[in-house]
Amino acid sequence: MREIFSVASSQREELVDITEQVRTVVERSGVKDGVVAVYVQGATAALMIQENWDDSVPLDVVNFLRKLIPKGVWLHDQQDGNGDSHLKAGLVGPSETIPIIEGVLGLSRWQNLFMCEFDGPRSKRDIVCTVIDSAP
Amino acid sequence: MREIFSVASSQREELVDITEQVRTVVERSGVKDGVVAVYVQGATAALMIQENWDDSVPLDVVNFLRKLIPKGVWLHDQQDGNGDSHLKAGLVGPSETIPIIEGVLGLSRWQNLFMCEFDGPRSKRDIVCTVIDSAP
Amino acid sequence: MREIFSVASSQREELVDITEQVRTVVERSGVKDGVVAVYVQGATAALMIQENWDDSVPLDVVNFLRKLIPKGVWLHDQQDGNGDSHLKAGLVGPSETIPIIEGVLGLSRWQNLFMCEFDGPRSKRDIVCTVIDSAP
Repeated sequence: MREIFSVASSQREELVDITEQVRTVVERSGVKDGVVAVYVQGATAALMIQENWDDSVPLDVVNFLRKLIPKGVWLHDQQDGNGDSHLKAGLVGPSETIPIIEGVLGLSRWQNLFMCEFDGPRSKRDIVCTVIDSAP
Repeated sequence: MREIFSVASSQREELVDITEQVRTVVERSGVKDGVVAVYVQGATAALMIQENWDDSVPLDVVNFLRKLIPKGVWLHDQQDGNGDSHLKAGLVGPSETIPIIEGVLGLSRWQNLFMCEFDGPRSKRDIVCTVIDSAP
Repeated sequence: MREIFSVASSQREELVDITEQVRTVVERSGVKDGVVAVYVQGATAALMIQENWDDSVPLDVVNFLRKLIPKGVWLHDQQDGNGDSHLKAGLVGPSETIPIIEGVLGLSRWQNLFMCEFDGPRSKRDIVCTVIDSAP
Protein backbone atom coordinates (compact mmCIF):
# COMPACT_ATOMS: atom_id res chain seq x y z
CA MET A 1 0.00 0.00 0.00
CA ARG A 2 1.59 3.19 -1.24
CA GLU A 3 0.34 6.76 -1.29
CA ILE A 4 2.02 9.85 -2.65
CA PHE A 5 1.02 13.31 -1.51
CA SER A 6 2.46 16.75 -2.17
CA VAL A 7 3.23 19.72 0.00
CA ALA A 8 4.22 23.26 -0.88
CA SER A 9 6.80 25.51 0.78
CA SER A 10 6.74 29.28 1.07
CA GLN A 11 10.36 30.12 1.93
CA ARG A 12 13.84 29.15 0.72
CA GLU A 13 14.49 27.18 3.91
CA GLU A 14 11.62 25.94 5.99
CA LEU A 15 10.30 22.93 7.91
CA VAL A 16 6.79 21.87 6.87
CA ASP A 17 4.94 19.55 9.26
CA ILE A 18 3.58 16.47 7.41
CA THR A 19 2.66 14.37 10.44
CA GLU A 20 -1.09 14.46 9.91
CA GLN A 21 -0.88 13.45 6.26
CA VAL A 22 1.29 10.44 7.14
CA ARG A 23 -0.95 9.52 10.07
CA THR A 24 -3.92 9.49 7.70
CA VAL A 25 -2.11 7.19 5.25
CA VAL A 26 -1.31 4.78 8.08
CA GLU A 27 -4.90 4.71 9.33
CA ARG A 28 -6.25 4.20 5.82
CA SER A 29 -3.90 1.25 5.29
CA GLY A 30 -5.43 -0.82 8.07
CA VAL A 31 -1.99 -2.21 8.93
CA LYS A 32 -1.70 -3.04 12.65
CA ASP A 33 1.98 -3.93 13.02
CA GLY A 34 4.64 -2.71 10.66
CA VAL A 35 6.30 0.46 9.47
CA VAL A 36 5.67 3.35 7.16
CA ALA A 37 8.69 4.24 5.04
CA VAL A 38 8.43 7.94 4.18
CA TYR A 39 10.55 9.39 1.38
CA VAL A 40 10.81 12.87 -0.14
CA GLN A 41 11.78 13.19 -3.78
CA GLY A 42 14.05 16.05 -4.86
CA ALA A 43 17.76 16.46 -4.10
CA THR A 44 17.31 19.70 -2.13
CA ALA A 45 14.70 18.49 0.38
CA ALA A 46 14.87 16.12 3.33
CA LEU A 47 12.86 14.63 6.20
CA MET A 48 13.45 15.25 9.89
CA ILE A 49 11.69 14.05 13.01
CA GLN A 50 11.53 16.91 15.47
CA GLU A 51 9.42 18.65 18.11
CA ASN A 52 6.62 20.98 16.99
CA TRP A 53 5.26 22.50 20.19
CA ASP A 54 5.86 25.92 18.65
CA ASP A 55 8.08 27.46 15.95
CA SER A 56 11.23 27.55 18.08
CA VAL A 57 12.76 24.16 17.23
CA PRO A 58 11.98 24.29 13.47
CA LEU A 59 13.50 27.79 13.35
CA ASP A 60 16.54 26.63 15.32
CA VAL A 61 17.03 23.85 12.73
CA VAL A 62 16.92 26.33 9.83
CA ASN A 63 19.25 28.78 11.57
CA PHE A 64 21.70 26.10 12.66
CA LEU A 65 21.98 24.62 9.16
CA ARG A 66 22.26 28.08 7.59
CA LYS A 67 25.25 28.86 9.79
CA LEU A 68 26.81 25.40 9.41
CA ILE A 69 26.47 25.36 5.61
CA PRO A 70 26.56 28.92 4.32
CA LYS A 71 25.28 29.97 0.91
CA GLY A 72 27.54 30.85 -2.01
CA VAL A 73 30.86 29.18 -1.16
CA TRP A 74 30.51 25.77 -2.89
CA LEU A 75 31.74 24.38 -6.20
CA HIS A 76 28.16 23.63 -7.22
CA ASP A 77 27.17 27.29 -6.77
CA GLN A 78 28.78 28.01 -10.13
CA GLN A 79 26.00 25.96 -11.73
CA ASP A 80 22.83 26.43 -9.75
CA GLY A 81 23.59 28.69 -6.80
CA ASN A 82 22.19 26.04 -4.49
CA GLY A 83 25.22 24.10 -3.32
CA ASP A 84 24.22 24.70 0.28
CA SER A 85 20.76 23.26 -0.38
CA HIS A 86 22.25 19.99 -1.64
CA LEU A 87 24.62 19.67 1.31
CA LYS A 88 21.82 20.25 3.81
CA ALA A 89 19.53 17.77 2.07
CA GLY A 90 22.21 15.07 1.87
CA LEU A 91 23.23 15.48 5.49
CA VAL A 92 19.67 15.33 6.88
CA GLY A 93 18.57 12.65 4.39
CA PRO A 94 15.31 11.99 2.50
CA SER A 95 13.99 8.89 4.29
CA GLU A 96 12.50 8.05 7.68
CA THR A 97 11.10 4.66 8.69
CA ILE A 98 8.53 4.94 11.49
CA PRO A 99 6.87 2.06 13.33
CA ILE A 100 3.14 1.36 13.21
CA ILE A 101 2.05 0.18 16.65
CA GLU A 102 -1.44 -1.34 16.95
CA GLY A 103 -2.58 0.60 13.89
CA VAL A 104 -1.22 3.93 15.04
CA LEU A 105 1.81 5.91 13.79
CA GLY A 106 4.47 5.22 16.44
CA LEU A 107 5.79 8.73 16.99
CA SER A 108 6.07 9.72 20.63
CA ARG A 109 4.39 12.75 22.22
CA TRP A 110 6.95 15.31 21.02
CA GLN A 111 7.98 13.75 17.74
CA ASN A 112 6.57 15.23 14.55
CA LEU A 113 7.63 14.53 10.98
CA PHE A 114 8.77 17.48 8.88
CA MET A 115 9.59 17.95 5.22
CA CYS A 116 12.71 20.14 5.21
CA GLU A 117 12.72 22.57 2.31
CA PHE A 118 16.21 23.80 1.48
CA ASP A 119 15.65 25.37 -1.95
CA GLY A 120 12.19 26.87 -1.94
CA PRO A 121 9.69 28.23 -2.28
CA ARG A 122 8.28 25.31 -4.25
CA SER A 123 4.70 24.65 -5.24
CA LYS A 124 5.11 20.88 -4.95
CA ARG A 125 7.32 18.44 -3.09
CA ASP A 126 6.30 14.79 -3.47
CA ILE A 127 6.27 12.59 -0.39
CA VAL A 128 6.08 8.83 -0.97
CA CYS A 129 4.61 6.74 1.87
CA THR A 130 5.01 2.97 1.68
CA VAL A 131 3.20 0.96 4.35
CA ILE A 132 4.84 -2.37 5.17
CA ASP A 133 3.64 -5.27 7.32
CA SER A 134 5.86 -6.72 10.01
CA ALA A 135 6.80 -10.39 9.82
CA PRO A 136 4.19 -12.63 11.51
CA MET B 1 6.82 -9.21 14.86
CA ARG B 2 7.49 -6.20 17.03
CA GLU B 3 9.25 -5.85 20.35
CA ILE B 4 9.76 -2.76 22.47
CA PHE B 5 12.49 -2.58 25.09
CA SER B 6 13.76 0.25 27.27
CA VAL B 7 17.19 1.49 28.19
CA ALA B 8 18.32 4.01 30.78
CA SER B 9 20.98 6.69 30.49
CA SER B 10 23.19 8.08 33.24
CA GLN B 11 24.50 11.32 31.74
CA ARG B 12 23.12 14.31 29.84
CA GLU B 13 24.82 13.19 26.63
CA GLU B 14 25.85 9.60 26.19
CA LEU B 15 25.89 6.71 23.72
CA VAL B 16 24.32 3.52 25.08
CA ASP B 17 25.08 0.31 23.17
CA ILE B 18 21.84 -1.59 22.33
CA THR B 19 23.30 -4.07 19.84
CA GLU B 20 22.76 -7.16 21.98
CA GLN B 21 19.13 -6.35 22.70
CA VAL B 22 18.39 -5.92 18.98
CA ARG B 23 20.33 -9.07 18.10
CA THR B 24 18.18 -11.01 20.57
CA VAL B 25 14.97 -9.65 19.02
CA VAL B 26 16.16 -10.71 15.56
CA GLU B 27 17.07 -14.20 16.72
CA ARG B 28 13.75 -14.61 18.53
CA SER B 29 11.84 -13.58 15.37
CA GLY B 30 13.08 -16.54 13.35
CA VAL B 31 13.25 -14.33 10.24
CA LYS B 32 16.00 -15.45 7.84
CA ASP B 33 15.99 -12.70 5.22
CA GLY B 34 14.71 -9.22 5.88
CA VAL B 35 15.41 -6.18 7.98
CA VAL B 36 14.91 -4.93 11.50
CA ALA B 37 13.68 -1.35 11.62
CA VAL B 38 14.84 0.15 14.92
CA TYR B 39 13.30 3.37 16.21
CA VAL B 40 13.81 5.41 19.38
CA GLN B 41 10.90 7.41 20.73
CA GLY B 42 11.54 10.84 22.28
CA ALA B 43 12.56 14.01 20.43
CA THR B 44 15.89 14.36 22.25
CA ALA B 45 17.31 10.90 21.51
CA ALA B 46 18.61 9.27 18.34
CA LEU B 47 20.21 6.12 16.94
CA MET B 48 23.71 5.84 15.51
CA ILE B 49 25.68 2.94 14.08
CA GLN B 50 29.25 3.25 15.26
CA GLU B 51 32.33 1.36 16.46
CA ASN B 52 32.49 0.16 20.08
CA TRP B 53 35.96 -1.33 20.47
CA ASP B 54 36.44 1.01 23.43
CA ASP B 55 35.03 4.33 24.70
CA SER B 56 37.00 6.50 22.28
CA VAL B 57 34.59 6.73 19.35
CA PRO B 58 31.42 7.16 21.49
CA LEU B 59 33.19 9.92 23.45
CA ASP B 60 34.38 11.55 20.23
CA VAL B 61 30.75 11.59 19.02
CA VAL B 62 29.54 13.31 22.21
CA ASN B 63 32.40 15.83 22.18
CA PHE B 64 32.03 16.59 18.47
CA LEU B 65 28.28 17.24 18.74
CA ARG B 66 28.75 19.30 21.92
CA LYS B 67 31.15 21.59 20.08
CA LEU B 68 29.08 21.69 16.88
CA ILE B 69 25.81 22.44 18.66
CA PRO B 70 26.55 24.30 21.89
CA LYS B 71 24.13 24.56 24.79
CA GLY B 72 22.18 27.71 25.62
CA VAL B 73 22.17 29.70 22.38
CA TRP B 74 18.91 28.52 20.73
CA LEU B 75 15.39 29.97 20.52
CA HIS B 76 14.01 26.84 22.13
CA ASP B 77 16.25 27.32 25.19
CA GLN B 78 13.82 29.96 26.42
CA GLN B 79 11.29 27.17 26.94
CA ASP B 80 13.09 24.02 27.98
CA GLY B 81 16.81 24.75 28.02
CA ASN B 82 17.36 21.82 25.68
CA GLY B 83 17.46 23.37 22.23
CA ASP B 84 20.81 21.72 21.60
CA SER B 85 19.36 18.30 22.49
CA HIS B 86 16.64 18.66 19.84
CA LEU B 87 19.09 19.76 17.16
CA LYS B 88 21.43 16.84 17.86
CA ALA B 89 18.55 14.34 17.87
CA GLY B 90 17.10 15.66 14.61
CA LEU B 91 20.44 15.69 12.84
CA VAL B 92 21.42 12.14 13.84
CA GLY B 93 17.86 10.81 13.46
CA PRO B 94 15.77 8.24 15.37
CA SER B 95 15.64 5.34 12.90
CA GLU B 96 18.05 2.75 11.50
CA THR B 97 17.10 -0.10 9.17
CA ILE B 98 19.54 -3.00 9.41
CA PRO B 99 19.54 -6.13 7.23
CA ILE B 100 18.94 -9.64 8.58
CA ILE B 101 21.24 -12.03 6.72
CA GLU B 102 20.55 -15.76 7.14
CA GLY B 103 18.90 -15.14 10.48
CA VAL B 104 21.68 -12.92 11.85
CA LEU B 105 21.75 -9.14 12.40
CA GLY B 106 23.76 -7.85 9.43
CA LEU B 107 26.10 -5.45 11.20
CA SER B 108 29.74 -5.83 10.22
CA ARG B 109 32.61 -6.54 12.64
CA TRP B 110 33.01 -2.94 13.86
CA GLN B 111 29.43 -1.74 13.60
CA ASN B 112 27.41 -1.50 16.80
CA LEU B 113 24.04 0.17 17.31
CA PHE B 114 23.83 2.93 19.91
CA MET B 115 20.98 4.86 21.46
CA CYS B 116 22.22 8.45 21.61
CA GLU B 117 21.02 10.25 24.71
CA PHE B 118 21.08 14.04 24.31
CA ASP B 119 18.93 15.14 27.26
CA GLY B 120 19.57 12.71 30.09
CA PRO B 121 19.90 11.16 32.48
CA ARG B 122 16.65 9.32 31.83
CA SER B 123 15.32 6.21 33.50
CA LYS B 124 13.63 4.98 30.32
CA ARG B 125 14.05 5.42 26.58
CA ASP B 126 11.77 3.17 24.50
CA ILE B 127 13.27 1.40 21.49
CA VAL B 128 10.81 -0.10 18.99
CA CYS B 129 12.10 -3.01 16.89
CA THR B 130 9.99 -4.12 13.91
CA VAL B 131 11.15 -7.25 12.11
CA ILE B 132 10.20 -7.39 8.44
CA ASP B 133 10.49 -10.19 5.88
CA SER B 134 12.13 -9.58 2.53
CA ALA B 135 10.11 -10.17 -0.62
CA PRO B 136 10.25 -13.82 -1.77
CA MET C 1 15.00 -11.09 -1.93
CA ARG C 2 18.46 -9.93 -0.92
CA GLU C 3 21.53 -9.19 -2.98
CA ILE C 4 24.97 -8.12 -1.82
CA PHE C 5 27.40 -6.40 -4.15
CA SER C 6 30.78 -4.78 -3.59
CA VAL C 7 32.34 -1.55 -4.73
CA ALA C 8 35.90 -0.29 -4.49
CA SER C 9 37.15 3.19 -3.65
CA SER C 10 40.30 4.89 -4.88
CA GLN C 11 40.75 7.75 -2.40
CA ARG C 12 40.64 8.26 1.38
CA GLU C 13 37.37 10.22 1.09
CA GLU C 14 35.17 9.80 -1.94
CA LEU C 15 31.56 9.38 -3.06
CA VAL C 16 31.00 6.35 -5.31
CA ASP C 17 27.74 6.28 -7.27
CA ILE C 18 25.91 2.94 -6.77
CA THR C 19 22.56 3.92 -8.27
CA GLU C 20 22.77 1.61 -11.27
CA GLN C 21 23.65 -1.46 -9.21
CA VAL C 22 20.69 -0.87 -6.89
CA ARG C 23 18.38 -0.18 -9.83
CA THR C 24 19.39 -3.52 -11.32
CA VAL C 25 18.65 -5.35 -8.06
CA VAL C 26 15.19 -3.77 -7.93
CA GLU C 27 14.40 -4.69 -11.53
CA ARG C 28 15.60 -8.27 -11.00
CA SER C 29 13.37 -8.62 -7.92
CA GLY C 30 10.15 -8.16 -9.87
CA VAL C 31 8.65 -6.25 -6.91
CA LYS C 32 6.12 -3.64 -8.05
CA ASP C 33 5.30 -1.79 -4.82
CA GLY C 34 7.63 -1.71 -1.86
CA VAL C 35 11.03 -0.48 -0.81
CA VAL C 36 14.66 -1.41 -1.17
CA ALA C 37 16.59 -1.09 2.09
CA VAL C 38 20.22 -0.40 1.21
CA TYR C 39 22.94 -0.83 3.83
CA VAL C 40 26.72 -0.46 3.74
CA GLN C 41 28.81 -2.58 6.07
CA GLY C 42 31.92 -1.09 7.68
CA ALA C 43 32.04 1.59 10.38
CA THR C 44 33.90 4.14 8.23
CA ALA C 45 31.52 4.19 5.24
CA ALA C 46 28.01 5.57 4.77
CA LEU C 47 25.25 6.09 2.22
CA MET C 48 24.01 9.44 0.93
CA ILE C 49 21.35 10.42 -1.61
CA GLN C 50 22.66 13.33 -3.63
CA GLU C 51 22.81 14.92 -7.07
CA ASN C 52 25.30 13.55 -9.61
CA TRP C 53 24.99 15.88 -12.60
CA ASP C 54 28.75 16.39 -12.38
CA ASP C 55 31.50 16.13 -9.74
CA SER C 56 30.65 19.40 -8.01
CA VAL C 57 28.18 18.20 -5.38
CA PRO C 58 30.09 15.02 -4.44
CA LEU C 59 33.27 17.11 -4.07
CA ASP C 60 31.41 19.70 -2.01
CA VAL C 61 30.27 16.90 0.32
CA VAL C 62 33.83 15.64 0.80
CA ASN C 63 35.23 19.13 1.34
CA PHE C 64 32.44 20.16 3.71
CA LEU C 65 32.87 17.07 5.91
CA ARG C 66 36.66 17.41 5.86
CA LYS C 67 36.39 20.93 7.23
CA LEU C 68 33.62 20.07 9.70
CA ILE C 69 35.40 17.01 11.08
CA PRO C 70 39.16 17.48 10.73
CA LYS C 71 41.70 14.66 10.84
CA GLY C 72 43.96 13.98 13.80
CA VAL C 73 42.22 15.69 16.73
CA TRP C 74 40.08 12.83 18.14
CA LEU C 75 40.52 10.41 21.03
CA HIS C 76 40.22 7.49 18.63
CA ASP C 77 43.16 8.78 16.56
CA GLN C 78 45.48 7.36 19.21
CA GLN C 79 44.36 3.89 18.12
CA ASP C 80 43.70 3.92 14.40
CA GLY C 81 44.25 7.45 13.12
CA ASN C 82 40.76 7.41 11.66
CA GLY C 83 38.61 9.11 14.29
CA ASP C 84 37.34 11.54 11.69
CA SER C 85 36.28 8.67 9.42
CA HIS C 86 34.11 7.18 12.17
CA LEU C 87 32.48 10.51 12.99
CA LYS C 88 31.66 11.19 9.34
CA ALA C 89 30.24 7.69 8.84
CA GLY C 90 28.09 7.85 11.97
CA LEU C 91 26.73 11.27 11.14
CA VAL C 92 25.78 10.42 7.54
CA GLY C 93 24.63 6.91 8.44
CA PRO C 94 24.86 3.52 6.67
CA SER C 95 21.23 2.95 5.62
CA GLU C 96 18.78 4.40 3.10
CA THR C 97 15.27 3.09 2.43
CA ILE C 98 14.05 3.99 -1.06
CA PRO C 99 10.57 3.37 -2.48
CA ILE C 100 9.88 1.06 -5.42
CA ILE C 101 7.14 2.63 -7.52
CA GLU C 102 5.52 0.43 -10.20
CA GLY C 103 8.65 -1.69 -10.38
CA VAL C 104 11.06 1.22 -10.66
CA LEU C 105 13.51 2.63 -8.09
CA GLY C 106 11.73 5.73 -6.77
CA LEU C 107 14.56 8.24 -6.88
CA SER C 108 13.67 11.55 -8.50
CA ARG C 109 15.47 13.07 -11.49
CA TRP C 110 18.38 14.52 -9.51
CA GLN C 111 18.67 11.94 -6.73
CA ASN C 112 21.46 9.38 -6.99
CA LEU C 113 22.62 6.97 -4.31
CA PHE C 114 26.26 7.15 -3.26
CA MET C 115 28.49 5.00 -1.08
CA CYS C 116 30.53 7.48 0.97
CA GLU C 117 34.06 6.26 1.56
CA PHE C 118 35.68 7.94 4.56
CA ASP C 119 38.69 5.67 5.16
CA GLY C 120 39.88 4.47 1.77
CA PRO C 121 41.13 3.47 -0.60
CA ARG C 122 39.48 0.08 -0.12
CA SER C 123 39.25 -2.78 -2.55
CA LYS C 124 35.85 -3.86 -1.28
CA ARG C 125 32.88 -2.28 0.49
CA ASP C 126 29.86 -4.56 0.82
CA ILE C 127 26.43 -3.12 0.04
CA VAL C 128 23.41 -5.15 1.21
CA CYS C 129 20.15 -4.61 -0.71
CA THR C 130 16.96 -6.05 0.78
CA VAL C 131 13.85 -5.78 -1.37
CA ILE C 132 10.60 -5.63 0.61
CA ASP C 133 6.96 -5.78 -0.53
CA SER C 134 4.48 -3.16 0.59
CA ALA C 135 1.40 -4.28 2.51
CA PRO C 136 -1.47 -5.27 0.17
